[in-house]
Amino acid sequence: MAELFTHRVDVRYLEVDQQGVVFNMWYLAYFDDAMTAFLEHGGLLYEDMTAAGYDVQLVHAALDWRGAVGWRDDVRVAVSLARRGRTSFTLDFQVLRGGDAVVDGRVVYVVVATDGSGKMSVPQVLSQALGVQRPLRPLP
Amino acid sequence: MAELFTHRVDVRYLEVDQQGVVFNMWYLAYFDDAMTAFLEHGGLLYEDMTAAGYDVQLVHAALDWRGAVGWRDDVRVAVSLARRGRTSFTLDFQVLRGGDAVVDGRVVYVVVATDGSGKMSVPQVLSQALGVQRPLRPLP
Amino acid sequence: MAELFTHRVDVRYLEVDQQGVVFNMWYLAYFDDAMTAFLEHGGLLYEDMTAAGYDVQLVHAALDWRGAVGWRDDVRVAVSLARRGRTSFTLDFQVLRGGDAVVDGRVVYVVVATDGSGKMSVPQVLSQALGVQRPLRPLP
Amino acid sequence: MAELFTHRVDVRYLEVDQQGVVFNMWYLAYFDDAMTAFLEHGGLLYEDMTAAGYDVQLVHAALDWRGAVGWRDDVRVAVSLARRGRTSFTLDFQVLRGGDAVVDGRVVYVVVATDGSGKMSVPQVLSQALGVQRPLRPLP
Repeated sequence: MAELFTHRVDVRYLEVDQQGVVFNMWYLAYFDDAMTAFLEHGGLLYEDMTAAGYDVQLVHAALDWRGAVGWRDDVRVAVSLARRGRTSFTLDFQVLRGGDAVVDGRVVYVVVATDGSGKMSVPQVLSQALGVQRPLRPLP
Repeated sequence: MAELFTHRVDVRYLEVDQQGVVFNMWYLAYFDDAMTAFLEHGGLLYEDMTAAGYDVQLVHAALDWRGAVGWRDDVRVAVSLARRGRTSFTLDFQVLRGGDAVVDGRVVYVVVATDGSGKMSVPQVLSQALGVQRPLRPLP
Repeated sequence: MAELFTHRVDVRYLEVDQQGVVFNMWYLAYFDDAMTAFLEHGGLLYEDMTAAGYDVQLVHAALDWRGAVGWRDDVRVAVSLARRGRTSFTLDFQVLRGGDAVVDGRVVYVVVATDGSGKMSVPQVLSQALGVQRPLRPLP
Repeated sequence: MAELFTHRVDVRYLEVDQQGVVFNMWYLAYFDDAMTAFLEHGGLLYEDMTAAGYDVQLVHAALDWRGAVGWRDDVRVAVSLARRGRTSFTLDFQVLRGGDAVVDGRVVYVVVATDGSGKMSVPQVLSQALGVQRPLRPLP
């Protein structure tokens, strides 16, 4: 099976809190960056989406921590398509610290028109960029 | 039934992204502040937890967006105990914009000793501060 | 002499870094919020500026730390007009922790048209909102 | 003359505000990362400083904007030693967007003991890591 796509993350000093690890919200920032890189790897630039009149919005996000990452750690985020819907798609994320999976994430995005007219079908070019379905953990 | 506890949030200008609404991760920051205020309302100061040798850590978080909040909106976060476990507890959150619930959140916290010895039972004073169980949506 | 305008800040847990105090950049976030509140106190809503076709942009910022603030501290930011220019104005800030001034700030803003046509004269309504000139420390 | 040291910055989507450019405070985050990379380039790991019982703290920061950076821009931060003091040192920063200098920064750091005993002389190993004095703009 093909290698998972992974995106390198530079943890910033300020992201680490008094517990000595990255504060919980920053993982969503990492997922956001990783999503953009994942689509680009699939041949779609984020700016080409908005230029074509649509954008993606989060409707659901779930995170599970088995561990944490710290400043100066070697951090990568794996991304994979978990589910392809009509107007939405689901990505699975896995935060890797030196190869160990420490945080799991699942995010559901909906495709919306940038003119405010609401949801729309996943465009062909976006669907293609998402690649083959390969959930990193069981789907509900 | 008693009123839900709510905590007022001052949305910062910088939290709003190019889509014109608060970027997704900041809701976890709001939940964090609201959790602290919720415990304090229940009679427990966060600093008294760490002074007593324990702290809380996130092991799971889930968010569902039906809408969004913007800068200068009237924003409050409702907090309620969803489940009380032996070494963990679950809080339900609801982000209210002018009274309308726009984002739902559920966070599972585990109690850990600050000396690094790992998980521990929910201390009595913390359990009391959490109040009565009252999930804001169905439990799994 | 009239009281200085001050704006209350809710320090977020995540803003505190491993050194145990608010990470340096967040003071600029506090200044931003305080500036908006200062203008509103002077009778001008930020959204009325952009609705009227102009906005303000930072061209210079300086900060001096004599101390720091932490989570749960009682924090206020004093704001005062330091200098009124033709297309710009300078605000002085002072971060107060329980009444003690711990961080000084000075920010120069330029007024720009939102249509991209560049700098413009400080509108009368904005000039009025800025109030009387009262630098909190010597001007260069 | 030797090339200036530069550090690549990955601008995050969330750092861009409604004005379409990176919100002002994030430049201080970039400087922080660039400072660490600059010291490492000079042979000193940040963690070796704290392990040796000292750390650096900001006492002054100044920023001047001639332009701005946006998401997906090619951004680098140049760093250079502006002044070497007895207990402090000053770094000059320059934010480069595709080679153009758009933001200037100057930060004064003081060396403090991590045991809380206050300021101390710049250790030899740190002084060496700072390299030759080469201000990027005139000193006061």
